[in-house]
Amino acid sequence: MVPPPSVPVDAQAQPIGPMDQNPPQSTGHQHARFIDGLELECGATLKPLTMAYRTYGRLSEAADNAVLVCHALTGDQYVAEVHPVTGKPGWWDRLVGPGLPIDTDRFFVVCINVLGGCMGSTGPRSARSEDGGEPWGTDFPPVTVRDMVRAQALVVSRLGIDRLFAVVGGSMGGMQVLSWAATFPERVFAAVPIATASFHSAQNIAFNEVSRQAIFADPDWHGGRYWQDGLVPARGLAVARMMAHITYLSEEALTRKFGRRVRTDPAAPTGNGAGIGLFGEMFEVESYLRHQGSSFVRRFDANSYLTITRAMDYFDVAADHGGDLAAAFAGTSTRFCVVSFSSDWLFPTAQSRAVARALNKAAANVSFVEIETDKGHDAFLLDEPDFDRTVRGFLSGCAEHAGLA
Amino acid sequence: MVPPPSVPVDAQAQPIGPMDQNPPQSTGHQHARFIDGLELECGATLKPLTMAYRTYGRLSEAADNAVLVCHALTGDQYVAEVHPVTGKPGWWDRLVGPGLPIDTDRFFVVCINVLGGCMGSTGPRSARSEDGGEPWGTDFPPVTVRDMVRAQALVVSRLGIDRLFAVVGGSMGGMQVLSWAATFPERVFAAVPIATASFHSAQNIAFNEVSRQAIFADPDWHGGRYWQDGLVPARGLAVARMMAHITYLSEEALTRKFGRRVRTDPAAPTGNGAGIGLFGEMFEVESYLRHQGSSFVRRFDANSYLTITRAMDYFDVAADHGGDLAAAFAGTSTRFCVVSFSSDWLFPTAQSRAVARALNKAAANVSFVEIETDKGHDAFLLDEPDFDRTVRGFLSGCAEHAGLA
Repeated sequence: MVPPPSVPVDAQAQPIGPMDQNPPQSTGHQHARFIDGLELECGATLKPLTMAYRTYGRLSEAADNAVLVCHALTGDQYVAEVHPVTGKPGWWDRLVGPGLPIDTDRFFVVCINVLGGCMGSTGPRSARSEDGGEPWGTDFPPVTVRDMVRAQALVVSRLGIDRLFAVVGGSMGGMQVLSWAATFPERVFAAVPIATASFHSAQNIAFNEVSRQAIFADPDWHGGRYWQDGLVPARGLAVARMMAHITYLSEEALTRKFGRRVRTDPAAPTGNGAGIGLFGEMFEVESYLRHQGSSFVRRFDANSYLTITRAMDYFDVAADHGGDLAAAFAGTSTRFCVVSFSSDWLFPTAQSRAVARALNKAAANVSFVEIETDKGHDAFLLDEPDFDRTVRGFLSGCAEHAGLA
Repeated sequence: MVPPPSVPVDAQAQPIGPMDQNPPQSTGHQHARFIDGLELECGATLKPLTMAYRTYGRLSEAADNAVLVCHALTGDQYVAEVHPVTGKPGWWDRLVGPGLPIDTDRFFVVCINVLGGCMGSTGPRSARSEDGGEPWGTDFPPVTVRDMVRAQALVVSRLGIDRLFAVVGGSMGGMQVLSWAATFPERVFAAVPIATASFHSAQNIAFNEVSRQAIFADPDWHGGRYWQDGLVPARGLAVARMMAHITYLSEEALTRKFGRRVRTDPAAPTGNGAGIGLFGEMFEVESYLRHQGSSFVRRFDANSYLTITRAMDYFDVAADHGGDLAAAFAGTSTRFCVVSFSSDWLFPTAQSRAVARALNKAAANVSFVEIETDKGHDAFLLDEPDFDRTVRGFLSGCAEHAGLA
């Protein structure tokens, strides 16, 4: 087969301006505002601090039925409802809802946009002073996963919740789960870290670094002050997303979904000056990735991407406890269910097993489940009945032990 | 640990102009020129055709001791001598030389810059007409791996070689080995396809597509006509190389080499306006990748990168033979040694095993060796004694069967 030439991702698309990226003005996020702000691990204080969140279900009178769901790198608080920007279903509406494994008939579910995010919580797109002013942009102070968790804890307290029944999350959400359990052990009855690790590996740091450099290489990056010109570094951010998306899947899943099938490329140049031997075709996997890239830039801020990937890279629970992961969980009474997926090569099972082993060493109550699947890292977001059963079973058992009705 | 902010790869470096990229004028590549040119699979004819190559050792009087070494995506013909542009040792001088596994005391070794490359063979940087004129750039016709092999065959004939004693190569070089054996079975006595596959997988196409989009996203890309402004899309090409480099290694190798070690970042912004909480540090793996990216753009042409990655993506030996890989090798008398590396996730052992299985089905003479290593795809370029022994042993055995002195 003869290859046609390559086509830039935006060959036919309109330039993606800020109107495509910023949430519509009509999107009213649910906010909690903390006038004293939050002192970060780096020493800077974000003041005031605003955290955007969503809740599902009802908090019991004893305030003992709250489940905090922590979102991943590019997720947000819209867990189980139509997303106000994309119009798509909630990212975990398969798992969170009435009668579902995280049962909103029984539990009060809270999900909070992470500190540094771009869906209403204080982040690089926020004004840098109380009186407004220009966005933080690249001057937004570096945040850690523990900072994210400390900001969430303020919201949880504000909601009148002393102890969370459970903290659940996958990928970077799982990092938050581990950080919650290590930072506030007395506030977490049960913890479900999914498809995650206690530190970011060299390979994962490497992928994140490439995604950052892709953003910097964009002509519209403008040193991070892209908003000044009414632009977003859409192409660089799309490249970052495309690459990351490959790491979320598995070779098997890509082969099953796309193989080497080609399709007509609507953006292929035809006729004069565009070269010889053009058949106007491209691989389906390319088309899919381009779509992933271009739809992402409409909802995500590049400076948030930089801030959050940095937080992931610097995540290392053991480093905060003298290099001993077990020490981070010493004396914990939290019940853990550590979940991994067999084909996840971004957060391989071995990294989850290391977490489970450290918890065992800390004499914690821990179960460890590896789900057999070919769907890769993304499996935690997809239809995996064994995974659903695991979450349902663990939470039900914990609810019984906690004496929940 | 608190993350410092991210720094663009070129934060302190000088802009990389064409002087850094083009080979110095003094580099006189060894050329073969074919005035009748070559008709490509796409139907276009490259006329004239120039192929740059290097030879090592002496061709026997019977012209029966020639070994063609095929280079990978970013390699070139400087196999076993100091590279004229980078000043670095030859990319396979560990394997090719007097007394080495590909023994230049015994064999006449030929290596040819691939068609579409940028080290002297006709490619996108070549003038588009016989009379000179502007470079082909993105108008360079799409080439296939088989086109590359057919262009090599012209050089081999010009050198007076009817039948090659052996064709050896890794990665895309291995694709050429398979294409040689399928296209010119009577001209290949022995074939050593290393760390390769009979087709590019969906995952590999996906990675290549991201690297192409990274190049397109560079402000200096200029629709592929970057030479007009005396520029190269250095940042995009560096991002492409950085990402590709991760895929050449393994998680184990990255962890062993770098882990989560940090170093002082000489390019880190300090003082005013650069943010809060800067410690001027970065992960060593980031520093390493940035170096890989920036040194690459000094020696490689972006349009060649596009042309060659496209050829790889469209490589599918079976597709050219009715979907049956065994049919591609029906009746072959070539002796094969298929080599894979256990930690290679870009061209996993399963893909080499599929090649060996098809060869068995075709009743070919084939041995298959998986080398145990944690070095990933790059292992074929690195110190792997078991690999060296495999190549040496196979070629010695074949030389005996061929009746070479």
